[in-house]
Amino acid sequence: MSVTTLSDELRLIVGRDHVLDGEVDRFGYSYDSSFLPLVPAPRPDVVVRPRTAEEVSRVMALAFAGGIPVTPRGAASGRTGGSVPLHGGISLALDRMTDILEVDEGNMMVTAEPGVRTMDLHDACAARGLFYPPDPASWKFSTIGGNVAENAGGMRAVKYGVTRDYVMGLQVVLADGTLLETGGKAIKNVTGYDLTGLFTGSEGTLGVITRVLLRLIPLPKARGVLRLLFADMDAGCALVHRMLKAGIVPSAAEIMDDVSLQAVARHRRMALPAGAGCCVIIEVDGEDAAELEAQCGRIRGVAEACGCLEFKVAQDKAESDELWAVRRGLSQAVAALAPNRLGEDISVPRDAFPEVVRRIGAIAKRFDLLIPVFGHAGDGNLHPSVLCDMADPAQAERVHRAVDAIFEAALAVGGTLSGEHGIGITKRPYLAQALGEAGVRTLQAVKAGLDPKGILNPGKIW
Amino acid sequence: MSVTTLSDELRLIVGRDHVLDGEVDRFGYSYDSSFLPLVPAPRPDVVVRPRTAEEVSRVMALAFAGGIPVTPRGAASGRTGGSVPLHGGISLALDRMTDILEVDEGNMMVTAEPGVRTMDLHDACAARGLFYPPDPASWKFSTIGGNVAENAGGMRAVKYGVTRDYVMGLQVVLADGTLLETGGKAIKNVTGYDLTGLFTGSEGTLGVITRVLLRLIPLPKARGVLRLLFADMDAGCALVHRMLKAGIVPSAAEIMDDVSLQAVARHRRMALPAGAGCCVIIEVDGEDAAELEAQCGRIRGVAEACGCLEFKVAQDKAESDELWAVRRGLSQAVAALAPNRLGEDISVPRDAFPEVVRRIGAIAKRFDLLIPVFGHAGDGNLHPSVLCDMADPAQAERVHRAVDAIFEAALAVGGTLSGEHGIGITKRPYLAQALGEAGVRTLQAVKAGLDPKGILNPGKIW
Repeated sequence: MSVTTLSDELRLIVGRDHVLDGEVDRFGYSYDSSFLPLVPAPRPDVVVRPRTAEEVSRVMALAFAGGIPVTPRGAASGRTGGSVPLHGGISLALDRMTDILEVDEGNMMVTAEPGVRTMDLHDACAARGLFYPPDPASWKFSTIGGNVAENAGGMRAVKYGVTRDYVMGLQVVLADGTLLETGGKAIKNVTGYDLTGLFTGSEGTLGVITRVLLRLIPLPKARGVLRLLFADMDAGCALVHRMLKAGIVPSAAEIMDDVSLQAVARHRRMALPAGAGCCVIIEVDGEDAAELEAQCGRIRGVAEACGCLEFKVAQDKAESDELWAVRRGLSQAVAALAPNRLGEDISVPRDAFPEVVRRIGAIAKRFDLLIPVFGHAGDGNLHPSVLCDMADPAQAERVHRAVDAIFEAALAVGGTLSGEHGIGITKRPYLAQALGEAGVRTLQAVKAGLDPKGILNPGKIW
Repeated sequence: MSVTTLSDELRLIVGRDHVLDGEVDRFGYSYDSSFLPLVPAPRPDVVVRPRTAEEVSRVMALAFAGGIPVTPRGAASGRTGGSVPLHGGISLALDRMTDILEVDEGNMMVTAEPGVRTMDLHDACAARGLFYPPDPASWKFSTIGGNVAENAGGMRAVKYGVTRDYVMGLQVVLADGTLLETGGKAIKNVTGYDLTGLFTGSEGTLGVITRVLLRLIPLPKARGVLRLLFADMDAGCALVHRMLKAGIVPSAAEIMDDVSLQAVARHRRMALPAGAGCCVIIEVDGEDAAELEAQCGRIRGVAEACGCLEFKVAQDKAESDELWAVRRGLSQAVAALAPNRLGEDISVPRDAFPEVVRRIGAIAKRFDLLIPVFGHAGDGNLHPSVLCDMADPAQAERVHRAVDAIFEAALAVGGTLSGEHGIGITKRPYLAQALGEAGVRTLQAVKAGLDPKGILNPGKIW
C-alpha cells in the first residue's frame, strides 16, 4: 500500500482533519522527552488521531492487514523513546480521547479515556473526596493511557504504590483490531491470567489502551511536609530505612545528595547550615492534625538517632509549598549546571540505596564527570543525573561509558534498569544483562503470541 | 515412551524413593479439595517429588521431549481442581521443597521454596517482627507455591490485598525445562513485561514455580476484634461500605447472613438477640491500643447510623479468639446442615454486594434450595454455599442449575467467576461468558507462546 493510499484509508476511518502526513507534522511526531540522539529522527509515515476505540480498532485492522508498524502515543512525555516511531508507519495519537467517563463513588473507581491528563484525572477525583495517588513528575502533561502503558511511578509510591497498583481493568485494541476488555470492578479477581497487569507497563507493544478503569482511595484529610538535613547520604538513607522498618510510612520520602542540594539552594536562594550534604523531604498524610503530629514526632525521634542536622516542619500551606518546591525544582536546578543532563532511572533493593550511591560516586570520579543523585529513597528508585557537554566527543564517550557503569552497578546490587521510565529504545542494549536470555525469550514469546506480525511499537524493549 | 520407562527416567533424576507409580499412590494424587464428581478420578501415570529447581527443570525437559502432560501440585487444597491431573501424565508434587531460604529484614522480604506451608511462612516472618498478610482459609495446610499459582486471597485482603500484591519475584521452570528468574528486590521495576504478575494466578499452566520472593510489612503491634449484629444483610453491607468510604480500613470485614449465623450459633451454643439476621466480624489493627480505640469509636459511629443491634468489642485474647471462632467455624457449621455443601466463590463490585445477595436469595427460592451466604464484604468476594443431597438426582440437577444462575448473577452485576479459588476445571464452562471470546483467545495466545506443546496442566482454565 503506498503512503498516499494509507492516508486516504485512514481518513475514511477518522475523518480528514485527523490524519496528518505533511513534513512538519511528521517531524513533530518523531521524538519524545528522552535524550535520544537519533539522526535523522525516525518520522512516522502518517499520524492518525482517532476519537473512539472503534476507530482505533479499524486503524489497527488496516495496519494488521498491511503489516504496517503502529506506534501508540500519549503526550510523548516518556523518557526512553517509547512513543518514537522507530520503524515509521503510523503514529497513533490518543490525544483526542480525553473524556473522564465515570467517577463511581460507590465503588471508588474512575473510568477514563487514555488521553486524559493525569493531573486532570487526579483533580476530578479529588473534587469528590477520592484520591488517585500515582504522581509521575510529568503529571501535568502526561496522559493516563501513557502512564498505564509505562506503569508510571512517582513520589507517592513509597506509601501508595505505582500505576499498576490502581489499574483494575482495561479496554485494549489488539494488533489485529480485536477489542479486548480485561478486569473489572470486582476487587478480587482470579478469572484467567492477569491480562490487566500484562498490558500495564507493556510500552505499547502488546495492544493500544483505549479505556482505563482505576481504583481510588479516600482522599487523606490532612497533609504535612518536613525537610530534614543530614551530613551525608548514608545518614539520610538510614533515616528512611529505620522509619519504614518502624512502620512509619510517609506518603513521600525524597532524598538528594550534596551537589543536588547545593544546586537547588543556589537556584532558590536558600540558606543552608554548614555541613549539610543531604536533604530528605518527607510528606506525611492522615486523618487529622493530631495524627500528623504523632507521625512527625515519631519521625523526629528516628531522625535524631540518625544525626539529623536540621528538622523543619512546614507550618502552613506556603511553607509546605516552599519545601516541596525544593524537590520539584531539582531537575531544573541540576540541569542548569551543565549544557546537557542525562537523567537516568535505576531502581535497587531499598537496603542497597547507600551502596549504589557510593558506586555512582566512584563512577563519577572514574569518568571525571559530575553525577548528582536524587530520588525516591523510600522505594529504592533513584535518578542519577550525568552532567556533561555532549558537543565534546571525548566527553560524550565518557558519558556513555559512565551510563553503562551505572546500569552495571544497579544490577550488581540486585537492582534493575528502570524503576518508572520503562525500557523503550534507550535501555534496550542492557535488557539481556538484566533479565537473562530466558527472560528476554519469555518476553518475546508473549509478544509473538499477542502480536504475531510484530506491528505494535516495533524496535522497543529488546 | 512407555510408563515404565518414564518412571525409570524420573528415578534417575529425583532418586528412586521420590517416584511413585503404584495404584494406591496414583489414586492418592487423583483429587484435590474441590467438589469434582469425576468418575473415574483422573489418575496420574506417575508421581514425582523433586527436591530442587534443577530436578524440576530436568523433569520438565523430559516431559517436553516426550510431550507428556505435567500437573504441578502443592498441598492439593485448591477448590477448583487445579492440581487434578486431568490428562494423566506426571503429577509434579513440590512438597519436598520446604525451605525458607532467607528472611531479609533490611529489605523486608522473604525467599522461600514453593512447598512451605503458608502459616509456617507467616510465623517465621512474625518471629522477626515482619508480616506476611495473605491468609487464605487453607493457610494451615496450603503451600506458598500453590498460593502464588492460584493468587490466593483471604480475610485480610480488604486492607492488605491478595497474594499477588506481595510477590516481588519468582523462579519458574518453563515447559521446556528452562529456568527463568522474574522480578527481584527492587520495589519499583518496569524492566520488561510483568512476568511475575503473569505467572501469579496462572494455575500451573505457564510454568512450575520453584522459588518465591515476597515482600513483607512491619507486623502491626495491636489487634482488636469486633462483632456487630444487624437485622439484615442490607444493613451489614451498608456498614462496611460507609466505613470504607470514610477511610476506615479494617484488616478484615467478614459478613454472614441469617442462615449462616443461625448455623454457627447452634454449632457454638451462642445466644443471639432477637431479630439478628446478619453478623459482621471486624478486625482492626494498628500501632497501639489508643489507635485501635479511636478506630473502634469511628466504627461504632458508623454502625449506629446503620441500625446496629449489638456492638461487641473483644476485651482480651480469649474473647477475640471466640469472636473469630464464629467466622472460622462457619464452613463447618454450614456444611453440617446438609449432606453436601458446594462452596462457591464469586466476586462482585463492592457496591453490588447487597444486590447479588438478593439475587442469590431469589435463586435459592427458584430452585428450592438452601443457599446461605458469607464472605469478605470489604472486597466484594462472597461464598454462597449450596446445601444439598447430591445423592438425589433431581436435587443434583437443581443444584447445577442454581450454580449456573449464581455465576450469571455475578456477571450480571459486573462481577466475576472467582475471587480467590481460580478457574481450574470447575469454572471452565463459564469462562467465555465471563471474559468474552477475545479474552479467552488472548489467554490462549499467551499460553501458546509459553507452552507451545500444551503439556503444563492441560485441561484447566478453558
